[in-house]
Amino acid sequence: MELAKRLSKLGTETAFAVSAEAAKHIQRGNTVYPFHLGDMNIKTPDNIIEATYKAMKDGKTGYCPNYGIPKLREILAEDINRSHGTDYTIDNVAIQPGGKPTISKFFMAMMNAGEEVLYPNPGYPIFESQIEFQGGIAVPYTYHEGKNNFELDIDEIEEKITPRTKLIVVNDLQNPTGAEASPQELEALADLIKRRDLFVLCDEAYFDIRYEGKSLSLAALPGMAQRCLLLYTFSKKFAMTGWRLGATIGPKEVIDVIAKLNVNDESCSNHFIQYGAIEGLTGDQSGARQIVKTLQARRDMVVSMLNSIDGIRCFKPNATFYLFPNVTDAMKRKGFDDYARFRQAALHETGVSFCTRRHFGRPLPGESKLYIRFAYSGIDVDDIEEGLTKFKKWLES
Amino acid sequence: MELAKRLSKLGTETAFAVSAEAAKHIQRGNTVYPFHLGDMNIKTPDNIIEATYKAMKDGKTGYCPNYGIPKLREILAEDINRSHGTDYTIDNVAIQPGGKPTISKFFMAMMNAGEEVLYPNPGYPIFESQIEFQGGIAVPYTYHEGKNNFELDIDEIEEKITPRTKLIVVNDLQNPTGAEASPQELEALADLIKRRDLFVLCDEAYFDIRYEGKSLSLAALPGMAQRCLLLYTFSKKFAMTGWRLGATIGPKEVIDVIAKLNVNDESCSNHFIQYGAIEGLTGDQSGARQIVKTLQARRDMVVSMLNSIDGIRCFKPNATFYLFPNVTDAMKRKGFDDYARFRQAALHETGVSFCTRRHFGRPLPGESKLYIRFAYSGIDVDDIEEGLTKFKKWLES
Repeated sequence: MELAKRLSKLGTETAFAVSAEAAKHIQRGNTVYPFHLGDMNIKTPDNIIEATYKAMKDGKTGYCPNYGIPKLREILAEDINRSHGTDYTIDNVAIQPGGKPTISKFFMAMMNAGEEVLYPNPGYPIFESQIEFQGGIAVPYTYHEGKNNFELDIDEIEEKITPRTKLIVVNDLQNPTGAEASPQELEALADLIKRRDLFVLCDEAYFDIRYEGKSLSLAALPGMAQRCLLLYTFSKKFAMTGWRLGATIGPKEVIDVIAKLNVNDESCSNHFIQYGAIEGLTGDQSGARQIVKTLQARRDMVVSMLNSIDGIRCFKPNATFYLFPNVTDAMKRKGFDDYARFRQAALHETGVSFCTRRHFGRPLPGESKLYIRFAYSGIDVDDIEEGLTKFKKWLES
Repeated sequence: MELAKRLSKLGTETAFAVSAEAAKHIQRGNTVYPFHLGDMNIKTPDNIIEATYKAMKDGKTGYCPNYGIPKLREILAEDINRSHGTDYTIDNVAIQPGGKPTISKFFMAMMNAGEEVLYPNPGYPIFESQIEFQGGIAVPYTYHEGKNNFELDIDEIEEKITPRTKLIVVNDLQNPTGAEASPQELEALADLIKRRDLFVLCDEAYFDIRYEGKSLSLAALPGMAQRCLLLYTFSKKFAMTGWRLGATIGPKEVIDVIAKLNVNDESCSNHFIQYGAIEGLTGDQSGARQIVKTLQARRDMVVSMLNSIDGIRCFKPNATFYLFPNVTDAMKRKGFDDYARFRQAALHETGVSFCTRRHFGRPLPGESKLYIRFAYSGIDVDDIEEGLTKFKKWLES
């Protein structure tokens, strides 16, 4: 037995190793403060659970169309149009078993071997993995620490475009930085994309996890809907991470290909939970509102406590549930120049568990500042306070 | 926007077009007797539904490990060992969102571009599609109409092996023929596989849909477990087609790769329905027994009615819910030599809807006999009787 050669190019989420180390630390009888997880310790709203149960009992247990059930596609198109100002119909929506499947299917549908793809680094590691696994060339663009936000440098992105560049991955409201482009930045990006004739994987997983203001979509700008494939997920807005339900939204021509890939890969998404999703989008919204409220209280607490620590600087993003504090000085003060050793020491000395910049793409040349990522989706306010008090004490000692 | 070149090699299940035609016929106010579906009109057992609901309410709504939850993997390994006589452990099991995802992941994990893969034709069309989409060369082997069963010709398979052949797809208890290898045939196949150093995708989707006797697995023969990756599904045994839950079972080295592909493709399978699956495997088995009983009554009716029609010859397989009658003489008598025209005429004249040999792989050189496929998983006994009475009358008129 010999495995396929292409596997040498397959990446993964190295953050799972952090979870494993945290679990070991707990097994040894220690307390862990889990800031490493992108998972949520918040319950799915009851009305979604009950609607799903009803559908199961009503016999929605056979196959459904590979595009997903028509009613959910229609309602989701309307919902997206309301929040985005777009003009999608049922024909623009293919339901998926999660947000993530849109990534691998996007590259299957749009990328040829040897083509270059621009992708964010630091960023969600599966972009890099899937571009290379499927034979493309992953070309990173980065975020720069600005005054109040991480920022894109549009000129820098343009310089990376070659005749072999056809695709770009955009993840505004970003994991791991929490970065959000200003309307001007988004317009400049859209202008670049149109000028250089690119097509976009637009990862909007955190579009609805928003505390103030209004999320803007690249797809809503003039001429952009036909150039964007949106990654949509029910995971965060409705605390449905483990349900595995999402959608690909975009031009009909691409959606038809995505649906054909659905036929090949998994036939269709789970039938009855699509009725739960309809309830999520159309029913009582107090559950979804409470989720955002809960996350906002956590954000406020984590940001304020991190900024109180000598040598840490942390922005306060209005969206996502991630923070990407600059810990260059704090690490230096404690004598660390290696991410893994810093992370492991923090876990063992304080129980505080987090990911580092290293879990979000390979290092870029010339990186000098050091960052770690805090997720606050899986930890309550009391534990945040307790953990970060220990973290501060350790770092400042 | 330009789609990827590889899409020209992507196949699909053309049977969906048959479903669409049947739906149109119903919309026009006609009765349709659905023998074209591989879906089931049988309810999932209540105990599985209730266990799933309980897990949902208990908060099993966050991510689970990409391999699936440990308890289900452990119980499934034990269950497979009991029915197969194998020796699997939790390390040999990766849970999947359905049976089908094992197919695309198998080729990602095991096949290099340009390599030849033996696959059954007639057979499930996704084999052919995925081999070619992923850059392999699909080399068909076929089934021959024997005395009481469709049979493999092991010598004929061996003649197709070249130095570029590394993989073979085996789907004993087969869709669409219902074929089942005898113990001697299975041994000869295992011998060939070991002698020529092949690795096997062993599609066992219908292993537990069995009316008499006992299913045998290729993986249970000496030295074969390390050469087989099993496609397991909860879909048929527990009438859970729309739940999308299955597993890949095989050597740990390959399962670890499959789980890494899970991380890349869909993160994990739905969390709470894995508790429903545990109840399915360990709880009250009367639901699963009733499903087989219901299907058996249908099989007996369809086989006997089809064989009563002048010019049709149909085997009575002990497993699967498919029949593959030889309709060469019946078509000739009615003046048809084209599958599509025959199928459409049957639908319009009688309401009986079925797939043909053409939906299960591209035609092979020298094919002279004509076959259609009847699935009886989605139609009750009364409708079988009514529909096939009309079908017989039409064919014999």
